[in-house]
Amino acid sequence: MLTTIGFDADDTLWHNETFFRLTQDRFAELLADHSPADHLHDRLLAAERRNLGQYGFGVKGFTLSMIETAIEVSQGRVPAAVIGEILAAGREMLEHPVELLPHARAVVTSLADAYRVVLITKGDLLDQERKLAQSGLGDLFDGVEIVSDKTPEIYRAAFARHGTGADQGLMVGNSLKSDVLPMLAVGGWGVHVPHGLTWALERADPPVGHRRFHEITDLAPLPDLVSELAQSHKT
Amino acid sequence: MLTTIGFDADDTLWHNETFFRLTQDRFAELLADHSPADHLHDRLLAAERRNLGQYGFGVKGFTLSMIETAIEVSQGRVPAAVIGEILAAGREMLEHPVELLPHARAVVTSLADAYRVVLITKGDLLDQERKLAQSGLGDLFDGVEIVSDKTPEIYRAAFARHGTGADQGLMVGNSLKSDVLPMLAVGGWGVHVPHGLTWALERADPPVGHRRFHEITDLAPLPDLVSELAQSHKT
Repeated sequence: MLTTIGFDADDTLWHNETFFRLTQDRFAELLADHSPADHLHDRLLAAERRNLGQYGFGVKGFTLSMIETAIEVSQGRVPAAVIGEILAAGREMLEHPVELLPHARAVVTSLADAYRVVLITKGDLLDQERKLAQSGLGDLFDGVEIVSDKTPEIYRAAFARHGTGADQGLMVGNSLKSDVLPMLAVGGWGVHVPHGLTWALERADPPVGHRRFHEITDLAPLPDLVSELAQSHKT
Repeated sequence: MLTTIGFDADDTLWHNETFFRLTQDRFAELLADHSPADHLHDRLLAAERRNLGQYGFGVKGFTLSMIETAIEVSQGRVPAAVIGEILAAGREMLEHPVELLPHARAVVTSLADAYRVVLITKGDLLDQERKLAQSGLGDLFDGVEIVSDKTPEIYRAAFARHGTGADQGLMVGNSLKSDVLPMLAVGGWGVHVPHGLTWALERADPPVGHRRFHEITDLAPLPDLVSELAQSHKT
């Protein structure tokens, strides 16, 4: 039985990493006098990794990590005006309009007819709520979970609460590490929809020969794939 | 019928505002060369209010607002080293050990025997989860809701999900604005437990002559109050 479809949000239903990349480019321009771009990028990534346990995912922590990195690479010489520009860049990220990815609305609408559909996303609570509201997809979902991290335990709980258990659930998303592997770990289906850009901290190797793992190039074939899985599992 | 007791967390079950005040004192020291403390405080509060719609509640947004204010009051002259100290002060807030308020454990334990007990709190997702885990109270609650704001609609949904509806629910907390008034607005009981320190953005006037509003000086009398309300409502 397959009863419940979970969707990741950022870079699965709408663009996200693009905005982080544009902001990082702006950050590199602002710090060009203090650091070459590749070194700056490495230091920023190190700060993000170091701060993840305290800041969690999302734009606010990313902004704080950019400021920390600016101070670090400039050895305390970065002017306050540049820090002010970094703050402004962070606020712009929190205002960017939501741009749906191809097929997102049609696919969620189609699957919502026959399955329970749930949105499971991580990041800043308010920002994720804002994006969902702006996406216009909110009413399609039977449940929404904004979580601090995507672990097997989170999927077990979310698919128990909104569906009929993780073993009767399918999770679709662009991150092998966050959307696919932990869902496979609790007995569900995991469908990977790669996005052109993947944040370094989300990279993982695909599972090898797992019978519940599937990969599609965009969301369009998802309804047919779900039908096949539901059929083959019945017979 | 009274079936479900909702608890606020910060400054109801454990200390919170104290840490914000200590950090603001540290912030005033750091900026002493650039601004008198009372002016600094006003500018910080204005920044917090201005940013609330984008940052939401919590330590990360507070840290970003402190940095913004430091740049503003110094007219861009604050040294990067001071910004670094502000970042460090924010990270310390995210590490401070949780200190339960008097009677918190005993009262939640006692009420959990006869009622559904739910934690309803706002702030940064990861930080609120950390504090709940460190409090050791997590297992006592039948449900936990970390929300971006505390509105009547939030209480209606939370008491429907975890209880039997807001009109059979009671919310206890230190904030009239966030914990009491929106709960009364959806037909529930609201119990105010004032805390010595209240953030300016949480202040509100108490309701006048509302039959479902009660005030207690600390958590100790809550179980008796709940029994009385449950009794008087039956007869």
